[in-house]
Amino acid sequence: MDWGTSNLRAWGISRDGGISFSRSSDRGMGKLAREDYPGVLSGLLDEEVSGVSEVVICGMAGARQGWLEAPYLDAPADLAGLIFSAVAPDMPGSQLQPRILPGVCQKASGTEDVMRGEETQLLGLSALRPGFSGLVIMPGTHSKWALLDGTKIDRFTTAMTGELFEVLKTHSVLRHSLQGDLDGPERSEGFAAGLAIGIEHPERLTATLFKVRAGSLLSGRTAPWCAGFLSGLLIGAEVGGQKDWLVGGEVPLIGGTGLCNLYVQALARVGAIGRIIDATEATIAGLKTARKAQA
Amino acid sequence: MDWGTSNLRAWGISRDGGISFSRSSDRGMGKLAREDYPGVLSGLLDEEVSGVSEVVICGMAGARQGWLEAPYLDAPADLAGLIFSAVAPDMPGSQLQPRILPGVCQKASGTEDVMRGEETQLLGLSALRPGFSGLVIMPGTHSKWALLDGTKIDRFTTAMTGELFEVLKTHSVLRHSLQGDLDGPERSEGFAAGLAIGIEHPERLTATLFKVRAGSLLSGRTAPWCAGFLSGLLIGAEVGGQKDWLVGGEVPLIGGTGLCNLYVQALARVGAIGRIIDATEATIAGLKTARKAQA
Repeated sequence: MDWGTSNLRAWGISRDGGISFSRSSDRGMGKLAREDYPGVLSGLLDEEVSGVSEVVICGMAGARQGWLEAPYLDAPADLAGLIFSAVAPDMPGSQLQPRILPGVCQKASGTEDVMRGEETQLLGLSALRPGFSGLVIMPGTHSKWALLDGTKIDRFTTAMTGELFEVLKTHSVLRHSLQGDLDGPERSEGFAAGLAIGIEHPERLTATLFKVRAGSLLSGRTAPWCAGFLSGLLIGAEVGGQKDWLVGGEVPLIGGTGLCNLYVQALARVGAIGRIIDATEATIAGLKTARKAQA
Repeated sequence: MDWGTSNLRAWGISRDGGISFSRSSDRGMGKLAREDYPGVLSGLLDEEVSGVSEVVICGMAGARQGWLEAPYLDAPADLAGLIFSAVAPDMPGSQLQPRILPGVCQKASGTEDVMRGEETQLLGLSALRPGFSGLVIMPGTHSKWALLDGTKIDRFTTAMTGELFEVLKTHSVLRHSLQGDLDGPERSEGFAAGLAIGIEHPERLTATLFKVRAGSLLSGRTAPWCAGFLSGLLIGAEVGGQKDWLVGGEVPLIGGTGLCNLYVQALARVGAIGRIIDATEATIAGLKTARKAQA
């Protein structure tokens, strides 16, 4: 299962590798105290529990402020042995045997970074695309860029792109230009305009962001256009500012389809081809692969 | 007087140019409906009102959502004649004759931008430094960079640096690293570290911002260090990403001393010398200069 900050999702994996059930809940780490976890887990697996004992967990449940800290592996690291660094939290009076997989960190000064959950998707990718070597991008609230070689993660970095979009939209002066329904047809036109500027001038982001506001004041840009423009500026700056990470070949994009499609457009502008891989599929493949390693 | 979004400040200017009184209030545009303005103004000048009739106002009171819209001048523009584009709001039953100076906009596609209030400080600078020509930086919530030639503003841009600091500090995941007193002695060390990265890699800002969080998780960075680091990253990216605006010579910095000192450090790293000019002094000089033009 994937126990994140906001949500959690669990899948039953049968002996032949098939998915026998799936469950989800909004009882993410952000809403839980340490002592809440056992109850949430047994509640979630309630009906299925007779057939389940082993529970492999990735994500924020292993954070310091989660259920039980699963100390980070330090990159470069081989993800093939993730399960051997898992921690086993107490589950009193239950037949469930949960284990939490570690995240990965990068400690070298100036490159400090952390991930929890994405390492399992990367391990999944190594199973879905055997022998893959190169850059993988995982768009999201905190986009991860990782250089992967088989099951080895060489280095990675995090861009706060999704979160920047949300806090600017909600809390900054730009919110005045982003009121109401943001999904009109002009959103894609605004995205293309923002993307061009973001990719060409990632170094000017602190200034180009203000063009969202100025564009609506002076040129009567609509809210959907402004939302697309802001999204384009940010994704463009993320991709344009890190294009030296591109190593040739197709770039797997692990995430939701809508967001990943925006990254496909961004990558095309720097001469790269993005291939979307469903995030859930990558997570399940990673959990299976992690568990298999102990056999 | 300077009637901004959050606050307003008024100065009495006697015939010989001296300051005869000063008043301030927190009744900024953001807290006022259109009909509130006359009452706030007469309340503010209550005790002095027998000697005052002419009131020259700059700032957000002239915005569309302010007292009475003072349409923007379009850059390039000569600020010497600001007063001739002022608007005169109604002040029923009062001897006060308020006029609101216009802001400046820039309409050319891709460079859209707006200022309200800063144009008056720029006019003030042209009086405080007769014959000055070059780049002027006005650090703040929305930093303005303007190319000035005497009283003429050639072009300008706005960086959302100060607001980015505030929304990230308050609303993003970085807030967990920025709790408590942020003004410890390690703040300046963090600032220097962030400034170096921001100036060298302004194009990576979406990614380097996350180092604030990673640095506190992995390296035990304190909150003051993280606050300084975040501030350094943002100011560094603003200055490093726009260093092609530098045209040689000293760069006047109009703003508060503490913030301007940080920009002096940033400019030094790109080979430029910043000179701090008190913002209030610039505003008063601008208001005087604007009014004198009609004589």
